[in-house]
Amino acid sequence: MNFKIDNLQYCNWSRKIFEINREAGLDAIHVTIVYHEDFDELKMVIKNWENHFSENSDLIFHGKSFKDIEKAKSENKTAVFFGFQNCSPIEDDIGLVEKVYDLGCRFMQLTYNNQSLLATGCYEKIDSGVTKFGREVIKEMNRLGLVIDMSHSAEKSTIDAIEISEKPIAVTHANPSFWHPAKRNKSNELLKILSEHKGMLGLSLYPHHLKDGTDCSLESFCEMTAKTAEIMGVEKIGIGSDLCLNQPDTIVEWMRNGTWTKSKNYGEGSKNRPGFPKQPDWFLDSRGFENLESGFKKVGFSESEVNGILGNNWYNFYKEMNQ
Amino acid sequence: MNFKIDNLQYCNWSRKIFEINREAGLDAIHVTIVYHEDFDELKMVIKNWENHFSENSDLIFHGKSFKDIEKAKSENKTAVFFGFQNCSPIEDDIGLVEKVYDLGCRFMQLTYNNQSLLATGCYEKIDSGVTKFGREVIKEMNRLGLVIDMSHSAEKSTIDAIEISEKPIAVTHANPSFWHPAKRNKSNELLKILSEHKGMLGLSLYPHHLKDGTDCSLESFCEMTAKTAEIMGVEKIGIGSDLCLNQPDTIVEWMRNGTWTKSKNYGEGSKNRPGFPKQPDWFLDSRGFENLESGFKKVGFSESEVNGILGNNWYNFYKEMNQ
Repeated sequence: MNFKIDNLQYCNWSRKIFEINREAGLDAIHVTIVYHEDFDELKMVIKNWENHFSENSDLIFHGKSFKDIEKAKSENKTAVFFGFQNCSPIEDDIGLVEKVYDLGCRFMQLTYNNQSLLATGCYEKIDSGVTKFGREVIKEMNRLGLVIDMSHSAEKSTIDAIEISEKPIAVTHANPSFWHPAKRNKSNELLKILSEHKGMLGLSLYPHHLKDGTDCSLESFCEMTAKTAEIMGVEKIGIGSDLCLNQPDTIVEWMRNGTWTKSKNYGEGSKNRPGFPKQPDWFLDSRGFENLESGFKKVGFSESEVNGILGNNWYNFYKEMNQ
Repeated sequence: MNFKIDNLQYCNWSRKIFEINREAGLDAIHVTIVYHEDFDELKMVIKNWENHFSENSDLIFHGKSFKDIEKAKSENKTAVFFGFQNCSPIEDDIGLVEKVYDLGCRFMQLTYNNQSLLATGCYEKIDSGVTKFGREVIKEMNRLGLVIDMSHSAEKSTIDAIEISEKPIAVTHANPSFWHPAKRNKSNELLKILSEHKGMLGLSLYPHHLKDGTDCSLESFCEMTAKTAEIMGVEKIGIGSDLCLNQPDTIVEWMRNGTWTKSKNYGEGSKNRPGFPKQPDWFLDSRGFENLESGFKKVGFSESEVNGILGNNWYNFYKEMNQ
C-alpha cells in the first residue's frame, strides 16, 4: 500500500484547504499548532482544532499513530498529526512533556530560531548544544514516543539531539545547504549523521529554503533530491512542504518576533520583503505533489523510490516511533 | 553617613529574622523572592511579602531606591529590596521586564544554574554567552534600572553581560575561585572586568562557597577579601551573605531541581550531604557582620574601607543605578 504524507503544513486552516489536501491524495499531514504558545495557550489551539475536526469530519480527523494513516487511507480522509515548532508548551516543566503527549501531540522542535531552554536555534551566534534540561526532555520524549524535530535548530544542537536520542529524530522541513546555503538548511555532515541514526529529512517547498526562491525550478529541486538521496539513502527522505496557505503577513511577523524583542526582526525575509514569499508555480499547494511525482521520475528515481519520498518513508518512520 | 547592607538573603522569613537583621544594624537587604516562579507565581510571592511588611512595619518596608536606604537608616528599619535568582518571571516576554520592575523588583539574575532563554548557567557544560533574547532583555533592564545579577552564570555569559550592559552589573553573592574553586565562584579575570565596568561583587558566606566550608576561618575569609580588593579595588566589594536561615532541606532540593528533571540533582551538595550546610560559627546570622568588621580591620583595611565593604559600597551602587 502506498501513502502520501506532507509532514509539515502551517496553513490558515479552512474547509477549502482540507479539500485541497484530499484532492492531492494526502493520507496524513503533520501540522504546526505552536510557535510561541505556552501550555494554557496550547489547550486553546487544540480546542480550535476540535472544531475543525467536528466541522470537517468527512475530510479530516486527529491522527495519533501510524494506524491512523492506514485508517485515513481506507476512509479517504487525511489524518492530522499535531506538532510544535518550539518547546514553549512545556515551559520549564518536565512534567508537561507527558501532558502534551496525552493531548495528542506527536512532534516537538527543541528550538525555534532562538536559544531555548533545551538547545540552540539556528539564528544564534554560538551553539552550545543540548542543555541539561534538554537531555532530560529528550529522555522523556523517547519514553513517550514524542518525535524530536530539529528543523530550526543550530548544527551542534542537532547533532547532539541525534546522538542523545535513543529513537530516530526528524528534521521535518528543511533542505540541504549544499544546494541553498540558508541558515535553516542542513550540512551534508549533519544529514549523514541523521540518516545513520535512522532519522528523516522532510524536504521543504518554502521559497526561502529553495535555490532561486520563488523562481526555483522543479528540475533543480528534483536534482537536489537525487543528490540528497546519495548522502542519506532515498528511504530517509520525505516531504515537509512548510506550506503556509492563506496566512496574512502579520503571522510571519509574529512567528519571527514572538514576544522576545521590541525591535523588528525579519528572519529569512528582509525589510523590503518582510512578508510570506510566493510559492513556485509547480507547488502552489499540496496538489503540487503530482508535479513532484513526475519530476522525481524524470531524474531517475524508480516508482517505489518516488512512493517512498512522497509518503511511504514517513509512514515507516511513524511506524517505528510507535513501537 | 555609614550604611550596613547585606545584598543577598534567602531566609524562611519571620519576625524573628527581621529582628536579627535589625540587631545586626542592617539598613538594607536584597532578598531573593524567585528561583523558578513564573510571572503569576511571582505575584503570589509578592502578596506574601505585603503581609510581612504590614505585620512588621516597625522593622521593615519595601525598598525601591537608594533613598529608601537613607530612610531606613533614619527610622531604624531595614529596607527590603526584591530580586530573582532566575529570569523565570519574565517567561519569554520582553514586556514582562517592565511589569516586574513596576512590581518593585530591582535585581534579576539572567540565569540560575542551567541554561536560560537569556544566558548560560554555571552548571552547563558549554557556555554560549548572552542570547539574542538576552541582549534585548539587558537593554530593557538598563532602560528601567533593573540590576543584572550574574551570580549563578557561566563565565562567558557573565563577561558578555558586563560588556553588553550600559549600566554596571552585580554578582551579588559569590567568592573568587582563586580562594575556593567552586563552580559558583569567579575567576580573577572576570572580577577584573566586572570592576573595570563599575560592577560589584557581594562576598558570600554560604559554606559551599567558602574555603574549608563550615570550618572556614574568619581570618581566611578576611585575607581573601584583601586579595580580592587588590584585584577589583576595595570600593567594588560588598557582602551578599546568601543566608538561608531556618529553611528546611526540601527547599534546597527544590532550588536545585525545580521542575526540570525527574532524577535528583545535588548541585553544590552531594548524595551524602544533600541539605543546607551549617554556617561557620563566626557568621551564624547577620549579627556576624560585627565579626567581619573586626576581621577586616585585623587584615589591614582602614575604617572607611571596612564601612565600604559592609554597606557603603552597595549604597553607592544603588545610587548609581537609580540615576
